[in-house]
Amino acid sequence: MYIILVYLISAVDLMDLLKQKIIAEGEVYEGNILKVDSFLNHQIDCVFLQKIAEEFHRLFKDEGVNKVLTIEASGIAIGALVAREFECPLVFAKKSKTKNNDGNVLTSEVESFTHGVTNNVLVSKKYISKDDKILIVDDFLAMGNALKGLIDIVNQSGAELAGCGIVIEKGYQHGGDALRAQGIKVESLAIVESMNHETGEIVFRD
Amino acid sequence: MYIILVYLISAVDLMDLLKQKIIAEGEVYEGNILKVDSFLNHQIDCVFLQKIAEEFHRLFKDEGVNKVLTIEASGIAIGALVAREFECPLVFAKKSKTKNNDGNVLTSEVESFTHGVTNNVLVSKKYISKDDKILIVDDFLAMGNALKGLIDIVNQSGAELAGCGIVIEKGYQHGGDALRAQGIKVESLAIVESMNHETGEIVFRD
Repeated sequence: MYIILVYLISAVDLMDLLKQKIIAEGEVYEGNILKVDSFLNHQIDCVFLQKIAEEFHRLFKDEGVNKVLTIEASGIAIGALVAREFECPLVFAKKSKTKNNDGNVLTSEVESFTHGVTNNVLVSKKYISKDDKILIVDDFLAMGNALKGLIDIVNQSGAELAGCGIVIEKGYQHGGDALRAQGIKVESLAIVESMNHETGEIVFRD
Repeated sequence: MYIILVYLISAVDLMDLLKQKIIAEGEVYEGNILKVDSFLNHQIDCVFLQKIAEEFHRLFKDEGVNKVLTIEASGIAIGALVAREFECPLVFAKKSKTKNNDGNVLTSEVESFTHGVTNNVLVSKKYISKDDKILIVDDFLAMGNALKGLIDIVNQSGAELAGCGIVIEKGYQHGGDALRAQGIKVESLAIVESMNHETGEIVFRD
C-alpha cells in the first residue's frame, strides 16, 4: 500500500514537472505549433526522459509487452529508454517518400501535420510478427496520423497492440480521443487543451 | 585492481559479443554495404545497446563530457542511452536537403556513402556553445563524412571535443584512421577490416 502510494505520488510529480517544463521551455507558434526543442525534439533531457520511460513501464508493465515500436526520428530516444525498461527490443518505423513494394515490408501512409507532407511508413516484416505484443511510444500525438499508421502496421503484422504511450498530446486536435473511443489504451503524460501563440499561454487538460 | 580487471574482462567480452552478433546477424551486400538491421539500425537490441553505452561511459568518463551529440536517425538510440549514462543532455543533428541561413543554426555538408546524397546537417546554436565538452556517438563510421560534419559543427560552436564513440567502424574505408591521425580520440567497439559479399565473410581488425 505504501509502495503504491509512493508510485502514485511520483507519477503525479513527474506529470507536474513535465507540464512545468512545457510552460517554461515550450515555444508556441501560429498554427497550433508547440516546439519543445530544448528537452524533447532536438536537445533531449535524457535524465528527465528516463523518468518518463519508467512511468510508461509502470503504466504498461502488466500488458505482456515484448516489443516497443516508434517512428523516426524524435520517437527513437524515448523508444530506446522505454525498451530498455522493458528489457525488450525497439523497432523504429522508417519514413520514405517512395512506396516500397518488395513484399518484405509492412507499409502505411502517414500525413504529417507539422510538415504538410505524406510519408510512407515502413517496418520490415522480419521484426514484427503475430507473436508480438507491441507498445507504441512517441513524443507527440496531435491528429494521431503517425499513431494510426503504426497501429495499421501492427494490425497488418497480426501482432497484438498493448497500447500507446505518448509524452505530449495536443488534446484539441482529438487524435487521442478518437483512438481511446476505439478502445485503445492511450496514455499521454501531458495533454495540452489549448494554446495561444500571442500570449504564449498553454492550458492543460486535468 | 580487482575491479579494474573485471572491467577489462567485461569490455573484452562485450567487444567479442558485438563481433559475434555482427557475424551472426549482419548481412553483407555488394558495394561494401553491411546491414545490421536486426540489432542496431531498424530493430534495436536495447539490452545489448545499454552495455555498449556503459562501455562508452567507461572509455570517456574522465573527459569532462557534459553533452552527447549524434545525428538522426539511427544514432539517436545509442545517443540516448549514452547520455543517460553521463546524466547529460543528448543533442541530435538534423538532416536537411535545404540549407538554412537564418543565423540561428550551425550547419555542415555531409555526403552519405550509403545513400549517395549530400545532406546539410543542422544543430541549433542554442544547444551547443563554447562552454560544452562534447562526446560524439554514432552507430557507424565508414568514410567518416557524418563524423566530420559533426566535428565541424562542434568546432564552429567553440565547444571542446572529448572524442567519438562508434559502435561499428569500417576500417577499410579509413575514415576513423584519418581522424585518429588528427589526434582525435575515436573509440570503435568493432572495426571491420574486410568483407566479402559472395561468401558473407567478415574479418575484424585485432
